[in-house]
Amino acid sequence: MNASVVTADYLSRTAYEIEQALRTSVPQEWPVPAKLREAMLYSLEAGGKRLRPILVLAAAEAVRGEGSTYEAAMPVACAIEMIHTYSLIHDDLPAMDNDDYRRGKPTNHKVFGEAMAILAGDGLLSHAFYAVSQTASLGVPSEVALAIVSDLAKLSGASGMVGGQAADILGEQGVTSLTELEYIHLHKTSDLIVFSITSGARIGGATPEQLAALEEFARKLGLAFQVRDDILDLVGDETKLGKPVQSDVQQQKVTYPFIIGMEQSLELVKRLTKESKEALRQANLSMPEKLLSIADYLMNRDH
Amino acid sequence: MNASVVTADYLSRTAYEIEQALRTSVPQEWPVPAKLREAMLYSLEAGGKRLRPILVLAAAEAVRGEGSTYEAAMPVACAIEMIHTYSLIHDDLPAMDNDDYRRGKPTNHKVFGEAMAILAGDGLLSHAFYAVSQTASLGVPSEVALAIVSDLAKLSGASGMVGGQAADILGEQGVTSLTELEYIHLHKTSDLIVFSITSGARIGGATPEQLAALEEFARKLGLAFQVRDDILDLVGDETKLGKPVQSDVQQQKVTYPFIIGMEQSLELVKRLTKESKEALRQANLSMPEKLLSIADYLMNRDH
Repeated sequence: MNASVVTADYLSRTAYEIEQALRTSVPQEWPVPAKLREAMLYSLEAGGKRLRPILVLAAAEAVRGEGSTYEAAMPVACAIEMIHTYSLIHDDLPAMDNDDYRRGKPTNHKVFGEAMAILAGDGLLSHAFYAVSQTASLGVPSEVALAIVSDLAKLSGASGMVGGQAADILGEQGVTSLTELEYIHLHKTSDLIVFSITSGARIGGATPEQLAALEEFARKLGLAFQVRDDILDLVGDETKLGKPVQSDVQQQKVTYPFIIGMEQSLELVKRLTKESKEALRQANLSMPEKLLSIADYLMNRDH
Repeated sequence: MNASVVTADYLSRTAYEIEQALRTSVPQEWPVPAKLREAMLYSLEAGGKRLRPILVLAAAEAVRGEGSTYEAAMPVACAIEMIHTYSLIHDDLPAMDNDDYRRGKPTNHKVFGEAMAILAGDGLLSHAFYAVSQTASLGVPSEVALAIVSDLAKLSGASGMVGGQAADILGEQGVTSLTELEYIHLHKTSDLIVFSITSGARIGGATPEQLAALEEFARKLGLAFQVRDDILDLVGDETKLGKPVQSDVQQQKVTYPFIIGMEQSLELVKRLTKESKEALRQANLSMPEKLLSIADYLMNRDH
């Protein structure tokens, strides 16, 4: 256990710094209609754990060492949070999950209307790629920045997160096998975790071997994260989660506890976390401590 | 006039080649859910003039000369068509323009449902950036490819096309000034034309001076294109347009003929086209003929 390395204080301090960067990520002088900018920032600033951007920063540091990559990794950290945020805005739409609340606040379309929510999502999705392109002016080699663009498009697009969301929606129409559930989780959740870790590692200058080991780490961590999410939806504390529990049950969503049971789901989170940490050790990083500690933190989280 | 350089035959042959490239742009081996892939291709293959991708190819050729940049420019040509297509899918949604038909075919959400249409749009938007990143493996320097990523994000995002669409929707709630109409057209239409021309020029190796002149050419061309669109919506031929005329009137959209009258709108298209061609001549390109000829073609088009 590395409980002393990643503390609640480290996580909240880093989340705060990411939020500062997000607030100014769309330049003030750009000709963005005021209402659209407001809608984009409303959801960007709606809080959340900021897990994905923290992973970008932690992975860069794990490869290169403390501090040196922080500034260059921040635009990519913002980018993945923009992608995550746009996906929540679109997922919450009436045509999708039809959610009225998210993190205790009315969802984007409830405040700005459906049309503006769709456009706010499109705006955030597009701007994520702008943010990645900006790393080149912060010392990241162009070919590395371009590899990150390519990864982001793949892992968040039709063969990644969007594909996972599509499979989820198609699955609501009767699909229930474990293979299909794995496809959904692998892409809907795990792909963005993989992007976060590998993009940070690329900025840190990871070797191909390190990237491969880190991808395996991220893949297992992402799956553990999602199974834990499924568990918390069943037995979590509403005030800590900031959303109603048992929403999966109400929406008749297929989850791990539903298919393999609660006992086995808890075991699975433990096993995946252990395996992820083993993969991470294979990467021979200079400072793996924070990533190892985040893995433990996520396994035990209650929100 | 350069009617002999750009013929209907050249345009349809190039459009055909672009359609071939679009068809295989999302690799078959990628794990995209079948229904999502179908929804993306349904709209990508729904036809249209393919004007934007043709401009990418023509601009690359104008700077570098015939043939040499064709292969490297094609992924960017596909990218801008993906962006254009995703914007049509999202614009057609019930929460936006609520259109049932597009180019004589049922709109995406009419065939695949709203949720899948939203995701097909998100998938195409994301994949456009993947396509741009692929140019680096076709001889385009990484820093040029990255500049194209940055331009695409800016010109198609919240400060570009998405911003124009947002202003359009907000404008339907009572905004009618010429300044606001210009903002809408400048961003909703002109920005993608600017991207098409400048990205092609970047691939052709344009100097900063050439890029500046080409941007002015594109800006005026794009505005002329949109005013012509407004005119055709009023007096065009439904069978040639492939959509009902007077839809702007029915949707109470503010258009150029509505604000400045038909006579002056026709004059404006002529003047903008003339000015765009003057800007183009300032660029001192090796083969400007096709671009000049496309400008004339667009001014006189009936669909």
